[in-house]
Amino acid sequence: MTSTPQSSDLDPAIAARLKRSADGLVPAIAQQYDTGEVLMLGWMDDEALHRTLTTGRCTYWSRSRQEYWVKGDTSGHYQHVKSVALDCDADTVLVKVDQVGAACHTGARTCFDADVLPVTQ
Amino acid sequence: MTSTPQSSDLDPAIAARLKRSADGLVPAIAQQYDTGEVLMLGWMDDEALHRTLTTGRCTYWSRSRQEYWVKGDTSGHYQHVKSVALDCDADTVLVKVDQVGAACHTGARTCFDADVLPVTQ
Repeated sequence: MTSTPQSSDLDPAIAARLKRSADGLVPAIAQQYDTGEVLMLGWMDDEALHRTLTTGRCTYWSRSRQEYWVKGDTSGHYQHVKSVALDCDADTVLVKVDQVGAACHTGARTCFDADVLPVTQ
Repeated sequence: MTSTPQSSDLDPAIAARLKRSADGLVPAIAQQYDTGEVLMLGWMDDEALHRTLTTGRCTYWSRSRQEYWVKGDTSGHYQHVKSVALDCDADTVLVKVDQVGAACHTGARTCFDADVLPVTQ
């Protein structure tokens, strides 16, 4: 598989304004739609965004495995897509989801629960 | 200025586990601490993270201007830092802030308000 935009079925009107990093990806923030919890950050290429918009399940591009990754396919912890938005300069995606179970592979509800840094001022 | 970790005063224990992209940065999600709104996504190098942890004001690395950027220094729309966390693999930062005024340079409350994509399934 490839992360190049050419291989994607993403709506050309969206693809035309998407601003990707050098590796063809944009960061995608997954947020629990009702509680507002930020669950995790993944990466999407055009095709992953297309699948997220059209399948109802949040789909990422795994940078480590270099393959598409439907969140929950292994764990059962699917992210059911409620809404998707681009930011003002179209280089970040915010996906509001209904998260089944734990978002984090560690079993924590979110990926940001465990490592709180000390703030001093 | 430089984005290399060596130039930073970041706690070495944090710097040692931070996983940066090829350009030395990590994505940083800013979230309104009380309402849960995702406000914007910026980028931090080690020094920007250090300043965010120690000055009380969210500081990013501007990729377009190649300089540090204290959110609000121009607009007055500061982000007062409430808490900072790394995600489970230490390659993303979540900053909970108290946002003064609009987070987005367009005047919108968040950078994700204007461009909602059609979801079909």
